[in-house]
Amino acid sequence: MSNSKTYNVALVGATGAVGTQILGLLEERNFPIGKLKCLSSARSAGATLTFKGETVTIEEATPESFEGVDIALFSAGGSVSKALANEAVKRGAVVIDNTSAYRMDPEVPLVVPEVNMDHAKEHKGIIANPNCSTIQMVVALKPLLDEYGLDRIVVSTYQAVSGAGSRAIDDLKNQTEAALAGKEVKGEILPVGSLPKKHPMAFNAIPQIDVFEDNGFTAEEMKMINETKKIFGDDQIKVAATCVRVPVLFGHSESVYIETKKPFEVEDVKELLTNFEGITVVDQPAEQAYPLATDAAGKKEVFVGRIRKDLSYSNGLHMWVVCDNLIKGAAWNAVQIAENLVAEK
Amino acid sequence: MSNSKTYNVALVGATGAVGTQILGLLEERNFPIGKLKCLSSARSAGATLTFKGETVTIEEATPESFEGVDIALFSAGGSVSKALANEAVKRGAVVIDNTSAYRMDPEVPLVVPEVNMDHAKEHKGIIANPNCSTIQMVVALKPLLDEYGLDRIVVSTYQAVSGAGSRAIDDLKNQTEAALAGKEVKGEILPVGSLPKKHPMAFNAIPQIDVFEDNGFTAEEMKMINETKKIFGDDQIKVAATCVRVPVLFGHSESVYIETKKPFEVEDVKELLTNFEGITVVDQPAEQAYPLATDAAGKKEVFVGRIRKDLSYSNGLHMWVVCDNLIKGAAWNAVQIAENLVAEK
Repeated sequence: MSNSKTYNVALVGATGAVGTQILGLLEERNFPIGKLKCLSSARSAGATLTFKGETVTIEEATPESFEGVDIALFSAGGSVSKALANEAVKRGAVVIDNTSAYRMDPEVPLVVPEVNMDHAKEHKGIIANPNCSTIQMVVALKPLLDEYGLDRIVVSTYQAVSGAGSRAIDDLKNQTEAALAGKEVKGEILPVGSLPKKHPMAFNAIPQIDVFEDNGFTAEEMKMINETKKIFGDDQIKVAATCVRVPVLFGHSESVYIETKKPFEVEDVKELLTNFEGITVVDQPAEQAYPLATDAAGKKEVFVGRIRKDLSYSNGLHMWVVCDNLIKGAAWNAVQIAENLVAEK
Repeated sequence: MSNSKTYNVALVGATGAVGTQILGLLEERNFPIGKLKCLSSARSAGATLTFKGETVTIEEATPESFEGVDIALFSAGGSVSKALANEAVKRGAVVIDNTSAYRMDPEVPLVVPEVNMDHAKEHKGIIANPNCSTIQMVVALKPLLDEYGLDRIVVSTYQAVSGAGSRAIDDLKNQTEAALAGKEVKGEILPVGSLPKKHPMAFNAIPQIDVFEDNGFTAEEMKMINETKKIFGDDQIKVAATCVRVPVLFGHSESVYIETKKPFEVEDVKELLTNFEGITVVDQPAEQAYPLATDAAGKKEVFVGRIRKDLSYSNGLHMWVVCDNLIKGAAWNAVQIAENLVAEK
């Protein structure tokens, strides 16, 4: 990375649901960009977009695209990252990869800045951004891990369709219109774009995100399980996940049950969460105040509420964790990593 | 109850979301009805509906309405049941109450026919129908309870708006139309009709069903906890619930995690569930087949899928349980109880 006070940034997948959010955040945060390269597949090359009032032409991503680039943000699918991330590294860039391509690679740190920014120091050119559903959960759990230790996690998710990309958002809207008009509802994308079977998403809950593995869990569930262990640096923590897509456009919600190693008081838990960077506690049951996906949409924080002690296990705690999956769940986490890298210079 | 081969039936709340389903089932099942009385508040009295091709005029429910009635099905809210159920009993009727009024009364059996029809024998005039979210879960768990014993249950629900009545269905549809048209979305009913604050339900997940109790759990969550213990006749079983409303019209889905007392093999679990009355197993991950609310709508069975062993606890099991909340979760369970009472005569 150069020692100048500005950084040449490449964004691969600039027109996607996450790429659009990354561009907006780089602008909003006034990230010290020297030159910005927006890269894509050959199909989208030549299109233009606006960044800080200037027109940027999208170029086809090739190995040579990364010449002179300091920070390369990848958000164009795992196969693109596998083909090009190392090409970027070879040319001196630090890659922040938002796909699943390198997350479980032992050579690649998997980073959520509020949780384990120290892991980023060990990078060999690539830093991975965790899966959206993992990021919001580990932020909410980190202060409790530090104070009480964590023995187990059981999570059930309520995930927005935006996690499956822009086309899934359109698909849900179109399906919902059809359902309201009494017409046949036919899914085109969900649950998994690359698989043959489609299920209706309008007015439904689909217990499949990503493909199934042999153990009966989906890849999304295994991401939550394995990424959590890696981020917390603890192979012994027991994690179980059920990942479900619901007819929500933006914002994943999670019903999180944990058991801590040491005893806690609920009031202390609320205080720890309230004081933790990146968390906003919304938890006034008497006023019907708790996190909602529609309130979290467009925001950077992780929202936590419904905080209550289990009735059978004194070390058991329930929480409801909500976050915009495209922002902190993806784009904002990546931009935060970039900001931290730059701040360390 | 008379010894004739037909039974005089009263239905209180005949025009509601559940009452309508009860009438449809009594007709479909050709229940041996002598005289059918459809009862309601003074407001709806005088309206008519059709049963087996005949016009039935709705009458105002009064204590005298139950003279000569053998079976009274109540589905008009807890306050109506509290005011009139004992009046019906006094006049010789057996009441099957679909409200929460008597569920936790130690004198009143709480019955799911596939699970504990034997409890109904102890009735003193009233038999309670459990809460919708409880019914589908205890059906799915009963064969496992019998074979392996149950130590704990952790459940997160994905509940349809029809559980909050016909007006909530209209509210979700209206809100969704507004949201798709880019207009402001304002909820009118949910999360709880009787509470002041309304939240948007369109494209959202609301972690509140019914009012909050002092322990931070909602009344809906406490129903699942307490009713499960009562139905299984086991105060020691540990139950934890998080109840969430999602933008689904018909059919509750549940992410259920259990720990059994004795070890199990997943294949045996699937066989036990497949062979259990009232359950249909849908569990072929390779074909993306699992229970879906849109498939369960209008059906009587409890659908179970995503059956898999936990990765940390060898006695831990995950399942996805789906059922039409208005049918087996309410109307069909009540009609089943009535059929069983009649069969025992």
